Amino acid sequence: MTEFAARAARNLETLRARRPLVHNITNLVVMNFTANALLAMGASPVMAHAAGEVEEMVALAGALVLNIGTLSDEWVESMVRAGRAATAAGTPVVLDPVGAGATRLRTRAALRITADVRPRVIRGNPSEILALGSATATTRGVDSTDPVDRAAAMAGRLAVDLGATLAVTGAVDLVTDGTRTFRVHNGHPLMSRVTGTGCAATATIGAFLAVDPDPVGAAVSALAFFGLAGEIAAERAAAPGSFMIALLDALYTITPEALRAGCRIEAAA
Amino acid sequence: MTEFAARAARNLETLRARRPLVHNITNLVVMNFTANALLAMGASPVMAHAAGEVEEMVALAGALVLNIGTLSDEWVESMVRAGRAATAAGTPVVLDPVGAGATRLRTRAALRITADVRPRVIRGNPSEILALGSATATTRGVDSTDPVDRAAAMAGRLAVDLGATLAVTGAVDLVTDGTRTFRVHNGHPLMSRVTGTGCAATATIGAFLAVDPDPVGAAVSALAFFGLAGEIAAERAAAPGSFMIALLDALYTITPEALRAGCRIEAAA
Amino acid sequence: MTEFAARAARNLETLRARRPLVHNITNLVVMNFTANALLAMGASPVMAHAAGEVEEMVALAGALVLNIGTLSDEWVESMVRAGRAATAAGTPVVLDPVGAGATRLRTRAALRITADVRPRVIRGNPSEILALGSATATTRGVDSTDPVDRAAAMAGRLAVDLGATLAVTGAVDLVTDGTRTFRVHNGHPLMSRVTGTGCAATATIGAFLAVDPDPVGAAVSALAFFGLAGEIAAERAAAPGSFMIALLDALYTITPEALRAGCRIEAAA
Repeated sequence: MTEFAARAARNLETLRARRPLVHNITNLVVMNFTANALLAMGASPVMAHAAGEVEEMVALAGALVLNIGTLSDEWVESMVRAGRAATAAGTPVVLDPVGAGATRLRTRAALRITADVRPRVIRGNPSEILALGSATATTRGVDSTDPVDRAAAMAGRLAVDLGATLAVTGAVDLVTDGTRTFRVHNGHPLMSRVTGTGCAATATIGAFLAVDPDPVGAAVSALAFFGLAGEIAAERAAAPGSFMIALLDALYTITPEALRAGCRIEAAA
Repeated sequence: MTEFAARAARNLETLRARRPLVHNITNLVVMNFTANALLAMGASPVMAHAAGEVEEMVALAGALVLNIGTLSDEWVESMVRAGRAATAAGTPVVLDPVGAGATRLRTRAALRITADVRPRVIRGNPSEILALGSATATTRGVDSTDPVDRAAAMAGRLAVDLGATLAVTGAVDLVTDGTRTFRVHNGHPLMSRVTGTGCAATATIGAFLAVDPDPVGAAVSALAFFGLAGEIAAERAAAPGSFMIALLDALYTITPEALRAGCRIEAAA
Repeated sequence: MTEFAARAARNLETLRARRPLVHNITNLVVMNFTANALLAMGASPVMAHAAGEVEEMVALAGALVLNIGTLSDEWVESMVRAGRAATAAGTPVVLDPVGAGATRLRTRAALRITADVRPRVIRGNPSEILALGSATATTRGVDSTDPVDRAAAMAGRLAVDLGATLAVTGAVDLVTDGTRTFRVHNGHPLMSRVTGTGCAATATIGAFLAVDPDPVGAAVSALAFFGLAGEIAAERAAAPGSFMIALLDALYTITPEALRAGCRIEAAA
């Protein structure tokens, strides 16, 4: 996938030149890590959730990241409000349906945001993505035990149904809009031992969406970049604490050229 | 205490094999560190506080951790709701009464949760534990200036009164259910220079409660494990930032055998 | 500025001897980092935002830190309530008007807190400070694009108008009460790549206000100390993750003597 390797490199270069403002309405656990990841890679994060300001704030942003990891009714209202304003203005939105399938509140919130906001990309683990396609799928907290294959099998059709590019992440990430499907092989198992790596991957997609109008291109290049940072971190650290720090460092140090050389993107049938 | 050393090792081994879901309703300061500590040691953390989902979420969990560090009325309601559901289902609950004694709101919230939820273990510093036993004890923020001896002297009786195992932590940790009393000598002074180490110790007790039905056994082995991680971290780091990271690393790298060899548990009269 | 170098050293020494309780009502992104920074330098942080306890909590504190980074109506009410109680009791208050100018909600909240609480020090980037002086100034999220010179030019007059010492931070920090003006040259560019360094600088001013009754003296010495920690961190780390950890370490390891030797404070005309 030379084409996508070049695109990833170009996106990273543009991101660092433009430093887009990325507005996040995200969960309480990962706010700090997400902001640090965005800052390290070259974006400008802002976190704002008050109903009285989200429309004004998102108007300043190049992308909006919505994440329901510690949702409450008020926060979901703010997400919908900000998301509608973003979509109306043509600003890309990415949704992370954390824990969809684990509780009805989460599944409903994810479906409502999807319907009302029309996010350009939805990133989740297989069980979260399955929950968006079926009321019967279940997830166990935020960790998926559903087979990756089930999600992969239905992702293309679901992407068309939802009108969004889906990024189903795991040992191998799958990105599809129903027409084009790619697999990203970058990443490292230690990423699952640091809280918020999935959420930070979603925010990275947000940052790339601010510089790449194609949601498939943005998602694929963002996941390759974030996964490569995990690989580089794993060369320096063998346990989760130091790995988390090395991951933030790698988001800062990876050059566009290193990304072009290191990304492992595969076009799927 | 060969018996408890073996128990601690067995608990850690079981924890890593089962990876129990630990549901946390905790404070805004320590959510990230708590989640990372639980992930590093081998548990599966989830943070969820919305009244509309906590009962459903705790039904999936092996233990519930309640922590009032940045309490508000709404969050306390969710804690009670989740806690009652957990106790009714036989799922163990651990309470961290952060700052009890510092303000009336905190003392009342801690007492209310204790009465309504019947947590299996309560972990606090001496002044927080004293506040549960007396309206006259005072704490200074989250740091105790009350003598450890006062808390130790009343802990056994208070444990019986409250129907909970008490874990009074400090330079030496005391665990008692009123019948059996143990002291845990693991730990390091730098732990007091990292925010949320007490809260993470409480969460560790939660994780161990998910695999050990005896609250005294779970609390003693959890505190020995967490304290040993602090000792190992202090061998690698001499200042709080790098110590915090080394502590997360140690929670991941300590083997059951190392825990058996390194835990310092003493049966008290 | 031998006088201020000596004052900075003395303040740090006093801070570590007294370990003042610093009450923070701050934003969700930086709570953990702020608490860790305060703990590392030698203060005792407490975070509490419930309307039902903030007056009681601030009565225990040596200083109050207010930060609107992730404001909501409820939190602003608690800030005003805590702030009035602090000011009435003679307890110093420092305000961080995060994102003032970016949205009307933030500008209004910052102006309301300033008017109702009368904070002793306000620390912000140039655009945030400009927003307090003009309804026409705009900021871009939390990052200033306004010229430093504009803020510097109006800071003295604005300080008098607001009745507060202003700390306008950036590559060089400016501190003025309208009569006395100082520039602090400590700091490092990597600080802008870690989220919450500005907020932690504000909290550091809070800690120094707890031991130094002169707001100019407290702000200047706090910013020199925090900036020096950044310089020392940059000697050890070249990327944001490890820099953030080295910064926390430096707040712990810098001695009063090292601060006296390393602070770069200049009296302005």
